[in-house]
Amino acid sequence: MKAEILSIGTELLLGQIENTNSAYIAGQLPLLGLDLYWMTTVGDNRVRLLEVLKRAWERSDVIITTGGLGPTQGDITREVVAEFLGEKMEVMPALAEAIKTFFTSRGLQMPENNMKQAMVIPSAKPMLNPLGTAPGWWVERENKVMVILPGPPHEMQLMWDKEVSPRLRARIGEVIFSRTLKTFGLGESRMDEILSPYLGSANPTLATYAKADGVQIRITAKGVERRVAVEMVARREAEIRALLGEYVWGVDNDTIGDVVGRLLITRGLTLATMESYTCGGLAEALSVAAGSSQYFLGGIVVNSDAARSAFGVAVSPASCQAEGGSNLAEEMAAVVRLKLSADIGVGIAGAVQCGDRHADNVYISIDNGESRRSFVRNYPSYLRLAKQRAVYAALFELRRFLS
Amino acid sequence: MKAEILSIGTELLLGQIENTNSAYIAGQLPLLGLDLYWMTTVGDNRVRLLEVLKRAWERSDVIITTGGLGPTQGDITREVVAEFLGEKMEVMPALAEAIKTFFTSRGLQMPENNMKQAMVIPSAKPMLNPLGTAPGWWVERENKVMVILPGPPHEMQLMWDKEVSPRLRARIGEVIFSRTLKTFGLGESRMDEILSPYLGSANPTLATYAKADGVQIRITAKGVERRVAVEMVARREAEIRALLGEYVWGVDNDTIGDVVGRLLITRGLTLATMESYTCGGLAEALSVAAGSSQYFLGGIVVNSDAARSAFGVAVSPASCQAEGGSNLAEEMAAVVRLKLSADIGVGIAGAVQCGDRHADNVYISIDNGESRRSFVRNYPSYLRLAKQRAVYAALFELRRFLS
Repeated sequence: MKAEILSIGTELLLGQIENTNSAYIAGQLPLLGLDLYWMTTVGDNRVRLLEVLKRAWERSDVIITTGGLGPTQGDITREVVAEFLGEKMEVMPALAEAIKTFFTSRGLQMPENNMKQAMVIPSAKPMLNPLGTAPGWWVERENKVMVILPGPPHEMQLMWDKEVSPRLRARIGEVIFSRTLKTFGLGESRMDEILSPYLGSANPTLATYAKADGVQIRITAKGVERRVAVEMVARREAEIRALLGEYVWGVDNDTIGDVVGRLLITRGLTLATMESYTCGGLAEALSVAAGSSQYFLGGIVVNSDAARSAFGVAVSPASCQAEGGSNLAEEMAAVVRLKLSADIGVGIAGAVQCGDRHADNVYISIDNGESRRSFVRNYPSYLRLAKQRAVYAALFELRRFLS
Repeated sequence: MKAEILSIGTELLLGQIENTNSAYIAGQLPLLGLDLYWMTTVGDNRVRLLEVLKRAWERSDVIITTGGLGPTQGDITREVVAEFLGEKMEVMPALAEAIKTFFTSRGLQMPENNMKQAMVIPSAKPMLNPLGTAPGWWVERENKVMVILPGPPHEMQLMWDKEVSPRLRARIGEVIFSRTLKTFGLGESRMDEILSPYLGSANPTLATYAKADGVQIRITAKGVERRVAVEMVARREAEIRALLGEYVWGVDNDTIGDVVGRLLITRGLTLATMESYTCGGLAEALSVAAGSSQYFLGGIVVNSDAARSAFGVAVSPASCQAEGGSNLAEEMAAVVRLKLSADIGVGIAGAVQCGDRHADNVYISIDNGESRRSFVRNYPSYLRLAKQRAVYAALFELRRFLS
């Protein structure tokens, strides 16, 4: 079945906000076995919205709109959809009550404007919006489905997960199961070469996604029942893991911070960091996992000679640069390890201070008191997200050090 | 003049990447006085791409495409545009040379595939791509302009700024000048109320953009010469500043980190941080400005009782919670200030460790040895970006402390 996404809102055409909704929905549709051929963005304009609705209705089976459901006069999605379908909107009392309750439970009075959010057309079933006042519409007519959703991403995503996805799944009648393998260290084109025997497969399908923490591989299978789909995915996962070996570091919602944390917990080890180039980025990434205080004790950020001296680091960035080596990062790892009585210390240093981004070489050192692993990465100064890449590099080297 | 954006790439329809290009271009078009009515995303598919090109050519004056210029067989934008315009592509020797040089200067051999990137049609002028191998096309025909750009955002943005924007500006013949005022502390709807006398103005125009570091106001004026447009913007800026007072904290590319840095440099002061809740986020934000090592000496991240003891912090999170106060953040600010011999210390603490996000109260303290400002912020645990908000809160309070 063919799906189409319409994003509605003049603010999108002014570049005032990025359209994260369409990427979210686009990523969900393959999980339902729906093919997406078109995404269109249009302003809050009756004539142009009617035109895109007409075209979508002609060429697609499932049409999903986001935006234009607010209480203001500028929000016209409901009105225009009703006009397009030739149906009349009426207030649904239960919806009016729910919207009033949304306000009164927050100690507020409902502005009169919001009453238009309680309106539906006869062929629309309302879908509740737990996080806002704009219900969605689920419209079925002429063997087509039109899904009308609000624009705020957190409202839209919750409604997608709770209401839209189950309804679409039920309508499609197949069971779809999906699993994501997370990899690091291989580029997307190399990955495509390795996976080429499987990329053409129709069931299960494979899709690769290049992310900051590596290339993700999503395996998706359809089956008449869940057990069948799960088994197909498991078989394909085993085949892919045999090809990729330790490039695969996690699945589904794993973060590399979680993976490192689990390794540290399993081995009963603690960690401390000292950073200049990334200036706190590694500490932040390590701290995010729930319960991180069990293994990530804390860290030091040095952004000046004064701070280096205060924490007892003798090597200067200048001598580090002169000696072309890892000695600064190595001393930082050793110093913070002792300072916090941690099992493992990690040091990250550029050849210059944090604020000056022109150093291409970033030195990273991991030290457990008995052995040490030091390495250098090259991040050209024009590279966006160079600091983030350095943080990921340190985390992936930590994973290897612990494995 | 009416503009239209076409984003081309099957990876966009699979949700594999977010379409940041269209938001970037959409935000640039008002600076040129162009109206954007449509944005369409389509896959690397000849039939569907021909269809959207035809519709765009019928209804728009300026058509901008991104994506589909890579060397693979799947990249068909050039071929389909040539087919649509009924022109024949030929290799342009100068382009072929430039692409070969791109490879040889990196010690690589040019794959044969890349030769197709050197092809142009007679009505296209090539636009060089300093960061990649895919040149763009600038096509003028029938009083319309078609701009063909590569998909990687850093390549596209540089070409937009260096090639496309000046050409469009020259073609439009008016001078447009724009300035962004950055504010903090007022919501977008309150801002719209305050600015309502000016929001309807056609020249200069106002647009508001809600960002993580506050609401931005962009003032844009058109004039027959630059001086006129600049003066119109300056007058409107003065009127807006009179309404908003110290809510305005910066202009254009200023970051709040830059603003705090300039205040510290002006006053000859240095700063050090100790963080638990944000665990390095404040240090990272302070370090980003070039030359930050002049004023931001460094910081400490504490994520455990062990680290707190090691750095000589006596107050525990438990007692902090029991006393319901800022005493932990205050001690952290004082301790790190002395440790690094800084003029100002900043402490940020949640009532629990970094990894546990359920504490709603975040305590922030700023200490210069003589006086101290302490405050508490409430970030519900479900709030996305709560840590980022805490970092911004600390920076904006630092600005106030220094002003």
